[in-house]
Amino acid sequence: MPSSHLKPLIVTVLGAGAMGAAITTPLIDAGHRVRLWGTHLDDHLIDAVQAGQPHPRTGALLPESVQAFRPGDLAAALDGAQVVVLAVSSVGVWDVARLAAPHLGQAQGILLTSKGFAADERGSIQLLPQTVSRALAQAGAADLPVVAIGGPCKANEVAVRQPTAPIFASVEGAADWAAWATTANYRVAHSADRDGVEICAALKNVYAIALGLADGLSEAGPQPCHDLKSAIFAQSLDELRQLLQAADCDPWTVLGLAGAGDLEVTGLSGRNKVFGCRLGQGQSADQALSQMTALEQTVEGVPAVRLALTWLNQRHPELIGRLPLLEAIFAVVWEGAPIELIVAAALPTPNSLTA
Amino acid sequence: MPSSHLKPLIVTVLGAGAMGAAITTPLIDAGHRVRLWGTHLDDHLIDAVQAGQPHPRTGALLPESVQAFRPGDLAAALDGAQVVVLAVSSVGVWDVARLAAPHLGQAQGILLTSKGFAADERGSIQLLPQTVSRALAQAGAADLPVVAIGGPCKANEVAVRQPTAPIFASVEGAADWAAWATTANYRVAHSADRDGVEICAALKNVYAIALGLADGLSEAGPQPCHDLKSAIFAQSLDELRQLLQAADCDPWTVLGLAGAGDLEVTGLSGRNKVFGCRLGQGQSADQALSQMTALEQTVEGVPAVRLALTWLNQRHPELIGRLPLLEAIFAVVWEGAPIELIVAAALPTPNSLTA
Repeated sequence: MPSSHLKPLIVTVLGAGAMGAAITTPLIDAGHRVRLWGTHLDDHLIDAVQAGQPHPRTGALLPESVQAFRPGDLAAALDGAQVVVLAVSSVGVWDVARLAAPHLGQAQGILLTSKGFAADERGSIQLLPQTVSRALAQAGAADLPVVAIGGPCKANEVAVRQPTAPIFASVEGAADWAAWATTANYRVAHSADRDGVEICAALKNVYAIALGLADGLSEAGPQPCHDLKSAIFAQSLDELRQLLQAADCDPWTVLGLAGAGDLEVTGLSGRNKVFGCRLGQGQSADQALSQMTALEQTVEGVPAVRLALTWLNQRHPELIGRLPLLEAIFAVVWEGAPIELIVAAALPTPNSLTA
Repeated sequence: MPSSHLKPLIVTVLGAGAMGAAITTPLIDAGHRVRLWGTHLDDHLIDAVQAGQPHPRTGALLPESVQAFRPGDLAAALDGAQVVVLAVSSVGVWDVARLAAPHLGQAQGILLTSKGFAADERGSIQLLPQTVSRALAQAGAADLPVVAIGGPCKANEVAVRQPTAPIFASVEGAADWAAWATTANYRVAHSADRDGVEICAALKNVYAIALGLADGLSEAGPQPCHDLKSAIFAQSLDELRQLLQAADCDPWTVLGLAGAGDLEVTGLSGRNKVFGCRLGQGQSADQALSQMTALEQTVEGVPAVRLALTWLNQRHPELIGRLPLLEAIFAVVWEGAPIELIVAAALPTPNSLTA
């Protein structure tokens, strides 16, 4: 993307949930013309926005100049759009990319805030940028650069201009995209290691379950478990490093905003941490999940850990048995294993002691 | 250290503060005979221990079999000691090592829980393992291996057997030392990168001030600053990586228990975090420090950031100007600069945007 693209562009955000709504603030602040399109799941959110009320998920008002569009108005929302931000849930990425494909004639690139893994029609697990590119190709649309957005970005903070350092990752031109979106409070770093950033982004919700578990043990017990939370943190980073190395990504990505930075924020607050916290306080995974589901709180780390293990089996079977924390989280969440398995997986093992 | 040293040994802990007292628990659990010697600053602590009361700093009872010794009984405390744990404050390391030197005839090694930098008699800043070795040499004692203990270890948690993953770092034999000290709850990792572990340990208190600052801003404001705390976390790790690379250490140490792990726990609780929190809530550095001093709460990160910058000027002047967060913390703490300097230093800069 040439630096001439520092000029204001027409941006359409697809998905009016928390992050879709929130990112309109820095985009407007950076001088762009911004539209927000809601899926069929977002009608009540668009209602609130059009009524001038705070967005129900972030609690913040959107910038006044944001134009809101409803599901039936996708063509109008994308008419002349020069940049598209894909901000739907990971399970919606394929469908929404297909829907958008015929209307991307003016688009120069796609920014992707959705995170996670997705299965293609043959059950093969992919990272979401690949999912987007495949969806566009299948729909006969031209190939477009896909820029993954990672790093520690809470939607409620981005929406009200709290200082935030996201990282834009793109095979080419990441620095230009970062400069194009940067404001005083939304200060965008950049990386060429898109797959590495995506793997970190997809797995942070999984490891945050274990971080939350330590918080739950702290709250339930007479003594804090800060040492344990920190050991879990270090073990998570070590496993991410192994994953990135196996996937031919830059392992140093783990040390930066996309890895340690995003894991830190995901362990501070959010639903995955809360789910883990409930486990640490003594709830079973089934109990915790059903209670949170009743509160309309989806826990992305739960499906993500299953997809991650499937992905691992498909792409990197050599790592099976070498990521004890990831496997322990899967066993606790999906197989009813006791939480002590997670504690044990986070601590140095007799093997590592004598290595 | 040969693996025959897995056998129980006589261990003397020098320094009866929080960590000195706490480490007696895993050492007893690992089967060793443990003595605890208090400096002239520790009389009230030894009083409590000898009276069978909880240790005033950790709130925990010591294992019954720990023998307590007073300042005048150093020779008796060290008589036949096979391992010495040096657990005094960083400013006391030189003097206590000199005092102990004549009594180390049976000693096979020194474990060092003290962290930080120390100035030698010519004002040259050193890491503490070097300080210990120089003190022993000056006193005419035989050279002994010095094992640095890093990683996330809160004394109050170690004392009551909360799960903890420290890391023992030694130029040689670290794995054997780790195995020698490991228990079910105190699970010791190991590293040959002793200087890298020490640099991380010395600087985590400094960076924790900035992490606490974000917490203070969260508490003082209407919105959390979790994104900022996480950006500070990632920037801290990046600066530690630069420091380790400049010092010919293993930069991957930063990703593990000694780096990210210890920084995580230091940002969760403790005096350095609390000091930063006060800054974020609006106190000046002078106000915060004098109030904490009145509460007998020393903030190690305050002298440490000055020593760190002196060390940098002496050893790695090429890094001056490349560690903006470290320099911003120094300016805020020692020169009265506004806290916004720390916020700005943690976020991606225009330079990094166009790199």
